[in-house]
Amino acid sequence: MTTAYQTLEARAKRVADIGGALAILGWDAQTMMPKGGSEARGEQIATLSAMAHEIETASDLPDLLDAAEAEAEKLDAWQAANLQRMRLAQRRAVAIDPDLVTAMAKATNRAEMTWRDAREKADFALLLPDLDEVFRLTREKASCLAQAFDLAPYDALLDTYETGLRRRAIDPIFQQLAEFLPDFLEKVLASQEKPVPIEGPFPPAKQKALGQRLMSTLGFDFDHGRLDESQHPFCGGLPDDVRITTRYDPNEVTSALMGVLHETGHALYEAGLPKAWRGQPVGASLGMAVHESQSLLIEMQVCRSSAFLSFLSPRLAEAFGEREAFGADNLYRDAIWVERGLIRVDADEVTYPLHIILRYRLEQALLSGDLALSDLPGAWSDGMADLVGIVPEDDAKGCLQDIHWPGGAIGYFPCYTLGAIAAGQLFEALRGVEPGIEDQIARGNFSRLLAWLRENIHERGSTVDMQTLLKDVTGQPLTLEPYLAHLERRY
Amino acid sequence: MTTAYQTLEARAKRVADIGGALAILGWDAQTMMPKGGSEARGEQIATLSAMAHEIETASDLPDLLDAAEAEAEKLDAWQAANLQRMRLAQRRAVAIDPDLVTAMAKATNRAEMTWRDAREKADFALLLPDLDEVFRLTREKASCLAQAFDLAPYDALLDTYETGLRRRAIDPIFQQLAEFLPDFLEKVLASQEKPVPIEGPFPPAKQKALGQRLMSTLGFDFDHGRLDESQHPFCGGLPDDVRITTRYDPNEVTSALMGVLHETGHALYEAGLPKAWRGQPVGASLGMAVHESQSLLIEMQVCRSSAFLSFLSPRLAEAFGEREAFGADNLYRDAIWVERGLIRVDADEVTYPLHIILRYRLEQALLSGDLALSDLPGAWSDGMADLVGIVPEDDAKGCLQDIHWPGGAIGYFPCYTLGAIAAGQLFEALRGVEPGIEDQIARGNFSRLLAWLRENIHERGSTVDMQTLLKDVTGQPLTLEPYLAHLERRY
Repeated sequence: MTTAYQTLEARAKRVADIGGALAILGWDAQTMMPKGGSEARGEQIATLSAMAHEIETASDLPDLLDAAEAEAEKLDAWQAANLQRMRLAQRRAVAIDPDLVTAMAKATNRAEMTWRDAREKADFALLLPDLDEVFRLTREKASCLAQAFDLAPYDALLDTYETGLRRRAIDPIFQQLAEFLPDFLEKVLASQEKPVPIEGPFPPAKQKALGQRLMSTLGFDFDHGRLDESQHPFCGGLPDDVRITTRYDPNEVTSALMGVLHETGHALYEAGLPKAWRGQPVGASLGMAVHESQSLLIEMQVCRSSAFLSFLSPRLAEAFGEREAFGADNLYRDAIWVERGLIRVDADEVTYPLHIILRYRLEQALLSGDLALSDLPGAWSDGMADLVGIVPEDDAKGCLQDIHWPGGAIGYFPCYTLGAIAAGQLFEALRGVEPGIEDQIARGNFSRLLAWLRENIHERGSTVDMQTLLKDVTGQPLTLEPYLAHLERRY
Repeated sequence: MTTAYQTLEARAKRVADIGGALAILGWDAQTMMPKGGSEARGEQIATLSAMAHEIETASDLPDLLDAAEAEAEKLDAWQAANLQRMRLAQRRAVAIDPDLVTAMAKATNRAEMTWRDAREKADFALLLPDLDEVFRLTREKASCLAQAFDLAPYDALLDTYETGLRRRAIDPIFQQLAEFLPDFLEKVLASQEKPVPIEGPFPPAKQKALGQRLMSTLGFDFDHGRLDESQHPFCGGLPDDVRITTRYDPNEVTSALMGVLHETGHALYEAGLPKAWRGQPVGASLGMAVHESQSLLIEMQVCRSSAFLSFLSPRLAEAFGEREAFGADNLYRDAIWVERGLIRVDADEVTYPLHIILRYRLEQALLSGDLALSDLPGAWSDGMADLVGIVPEDDAKGCLQDIHWPGGAIGYFPCYTLGAIAAGQLFEALRGVEPGIEDQIARGNFSRLLAWLRENIHERGSTVDMQTLLKDVTGQPLTLEPYLAHLERRY
């Protein structure tokens, strides 16, 4: 006889199979699809998404969940955690009216189109009406979720990107960072040593070959994944078929390479998820902050270290010929070069959190209505002046630079910096148990690093939330100190 | 108020969106997917296929179809034809028990795996038990369909590959071919002139560039499609995003090129389907015989003609440098070179139908039980001796060469040769209305050719069946004479 729990597993597997299909369709749209295929692709994606949503909002699902929960003592710990994740998914799916889902999809689609145009013309007024509609609908969505989960509206949004994440955990950390970083930045700018420029040409085919070689060395399995090109680098696909992308500039080598290594961090997390739980919610990765901790641990803690760059130095020379700029010390100076910049995605490790704090403050004020959308450009400039110390000459380099808000991703930005902080905390814990880790990295031996990440993070799937995971691994919930210590050490 | 017909259109669109997603997932599996992704991909495909099947077998569907048919006078001709196609799809879907569908999927999957091994070892006995199971289940399937559609079992299978196709239309044509071709083959072999060998190297990147150029010239729109590589060339994707593939041998240029042109014929058909009916059954292509008529019209009638080869000759020289073998006359001698061969996929235009007739006769005998599967190798050798005039030295080059039977595609083979015959008939009709067509082809002008195919075949979608289509366009149902006249003219 099939138990309620078994029925739920079969349904979850169906949702996961649809999700896997959607992941490949999304990857294809960014990497392979001819532009004339986009309309049909949009319809396929909408249909598959609707079918997954129907399974997650089926009218008999609450009774099935009740029945399975009533017999929860028969489940083992993983099954019980799986059941909890199923309940959470169901509560999230039913909390928002299908009409609101549709309205949101249309509004964000339109706002994203307008955003491309507005950014090109550096004209925020052009985006204002569409963005206003996105914020109006997001308020409605936040209010539905807030009611269903008994949370404040902004917390309810945060929770959809990283389950369990709350403002009260973020606020003191961001406050401390906002106080520390501007002075620290001054000191770094005054003392850093300029690297010799690393000049091209760097033929893309050779960049790709080197990237693949480094991916393999780090533990990426090309029997279960690919590296391709797309306009915006990302990690897509599914655990057994991870697809990462990058973008090559023939005159520049480190940005594409660091991009590949960043996405490799995401990919290793996906590939390392518990094999026995493929296709079940408990076997999936945690939220965006934990995912970003894995990419930033690989990029920032490991690959921008002097240990890694001494390993990389001869490999760059081998790929592109000997050059003075390929010296390990120079590569390190280049990898940790700091600047006051206007653009978040180009920012270094020191200024990046300041860009995030600005967005974190502004999106809360916009969501609550404390800040009128028409006042955003002025508030942006004031915030930049205050936090980063420069002001954009136009909105294209200001409040129009990111797609997140037109795309409806409000509550997403803090995950980037929380991920960086968690990466600092995790890497410190690893150094505690594996004091020789930096020597291993310098020798190009990443097996202990990967084994530790697998055992402590990847293979735990979604059995616990981010804070519990961090406590288990490091003895503390999310804590800023290791990250600050890392910055002090490096800069 | 939504009518029954409108509800049916919405459901058909959903099935089509799932089908489009499956088409891209299938293309990806053959071209891009790392091998470790195959298990997850198989599960995604099974889940999406099951969801489409559930829509097509929904319990309320017969009532909806009845209601729409009762109001059929309110529908225009296209809508009425669409409704007929929906009824047909529903009848086909419910005719076969879901348990049989599952058993068939498992049996063919196992038989295909065993087949690879058996073919490598040239050991038919190895495949025998699995193939026996596939034939046993196919008999069951044929019997279900035969009952539901009041057809003979083999006709019921034929009907699934080309609606309306019957043995009584094929038998006299194949009989006539089986009488004509062996003597004709003798004559051709005695009189043909050997071409100068066309020797490489032909770098794959240059082969690809030339292939793409010819595709564009023929009317393939790269905003709505791609050319890639795969082990087995195919045409996949969907009308607005057609994906064709080929395989390059650096020592050989014509086979990959003719393969690309063949698949371009399939692709032009898909792209030319009526735009207003995307996602509806009536807007889809007809069956395999008509599809093959479009690829073979382009490959055999157009691209292996001396007119086309005189157009190709300077383009080959431009791509790979001047060579004696690139002379138009030599290319033509090469393109129409005839040989007694053992392998169907390598066969020329004269011997290919003989390979098909052998399979047509054998699969009927195997299905009815007149021929025991254990006697297949002997019957194969006898048939080859009789029809083609040579005998395979082992089963790998004999009855183990094709994947069709282990894959459960019984009733599929005749479509290849019926397509070739229909291509001859269609091209004759085109020459009747467009006497200068060969001059246009020689000048590389394919616009009238494409316009005629669009108007007469592609844009009609599935409004009529193959025989009606041929009657409308050529004045006659499927007829052998134009094809025989073509062979007499060419050889």
